[in-house]
Amino acid sequence: MDGSSSAERLARQVEFIVEVDKLKEVFRQTVNTRSRRPENDAEHSWHLCLCVLVLAEHANHAALDVLRVLKMVIIHDLVEIDAGDTFAYDTAAMADQHEREARAADRIFGLLPAGQTQEFRALWDEFEERKTPEARFAAAVDRFQPMLLNCRTEGSAWSRHGVTQDRVVARNRHIAEGCAELWRYAEAMVQESVDAGHLKPR
Amino acid sequence: MDGSSSAERLARQVEFIVEVDKLKEVFRQTVNTRSRRPENDAEHSWHLCLCVLVLAEHANHAALDVLRVLKMVIIHDLVEIDAGDTFAYDTAAMADQHEREARAADRIFGLLPAGQTQEFRALWDEFEERKTPEARFAAAVDRFQPMLLNCRTEGSAWSRHGVTQDRVVARNRHIAEGCAELWRYAEAMVQESVDAGHLKPR
Repeated sequence: MDGSSSAERLARQVEFIVEVDKLKEVFRQTVNTRSRRPENDAEHSWHLCLCVLVLAEHANHAALDVLRVLKMVIIHDLVEIDAGDTFAYDTAAMADQHEREARAADRIFGLLPAGQTQEFRALWDEFEERKTPEARFAAAVDRFQPMLLNCRTEGSAWSRHGVTQDRVVARNRHIAEGCAELWRYAEAMVQESVDAGHLKPR
Repeated sequence: MDGSSSAERLARQVEFIVEVDKLKEVFRQTVNTRSRRPENDAEHSWHLCLCVLVLAEHANHAALDVLRVLKMVIIHDLVEIDAGDTFAYDTAAMADQHEREARAADRIFGLLPAGQTQEFRALWDEFEERKTPEARFAAAVDRFQPMLLNCRTEGSAWSRHGVTQDRVVARNRHIAEGCAELWRYAEAMVQESVDAGHLKPR
């Protein structure tokens, strides 16, 4: 790796672990089903891990590298420690989102020792680019999980922000690129929210 | 697997994903470094994932199956949805802890479709038994992470419960079975808390 000792690497890694503790204070628009309080990014990232373990058998790509998918979902939101959470339907904030997050990636992954800085950055870039089967599946669960929480909380974040079915479908249809079966499920689930009066068609 | 269709399995898996959302409401004695509010099990489980990714190179066992370690830390606390969190120094509650948690494992993992019920139960049993290198490393980070948060919050949970250094060392020394280097680091870290007056020696 580099010239530093194992003990020096460990000390640096522990400081990274302390720094990322801040992800527990980055709150999202989605609310949790039981308490109805806003979900934070650490909880969201853990919930995605669970989705990956449970749903990987449905991925479009049969020979998915599940370890790489997990690594991506574990680290995908760390940039939000600096850049904050950008709501999926906030088109104004999305304009410079990637630039803000790339700066955050430089700082945060730069806290790690040699080798790991590059590994984590490559995983984050892969997730953002959404080209590999692993990144597409990670992105699929990253979009599906908030849809699911919304549908199980009477469309809470959607109605608070005036989001409509046509925008939900347009924003999330890339789920099908990673998991066509999950997208079919999601479309039907969203239609149920419309039928129940929790989401406006347009 | 079983006779059910892929769509039936998916519907059942989604209900499991909704059920485990409750882990976000199981609060621990440890507090997060920035907000100083109690950490919940979902945040804790995500933080362990990060520890695994960053610290695996220090494990005693060089050829660690990192995917299996991650699976264990992702699911290890799901039983607490029913059984609640048991504080690591609450010897009374620890007496029937395993029995309560085994009942919870039956119910919660039983929500999954065929194959996954058995897979998740086997992972949880492996974690609990702490015999394989993967389970020992998972247990090491599961003990190290709350120690770290305590040391970075002036011994908050320890002082609230009158826990002393000798008990911290006795309770956590099995970290060395999974990662001797991490245990050396942890012992020095705990000594710093004592020297700073945040933890009583005995």
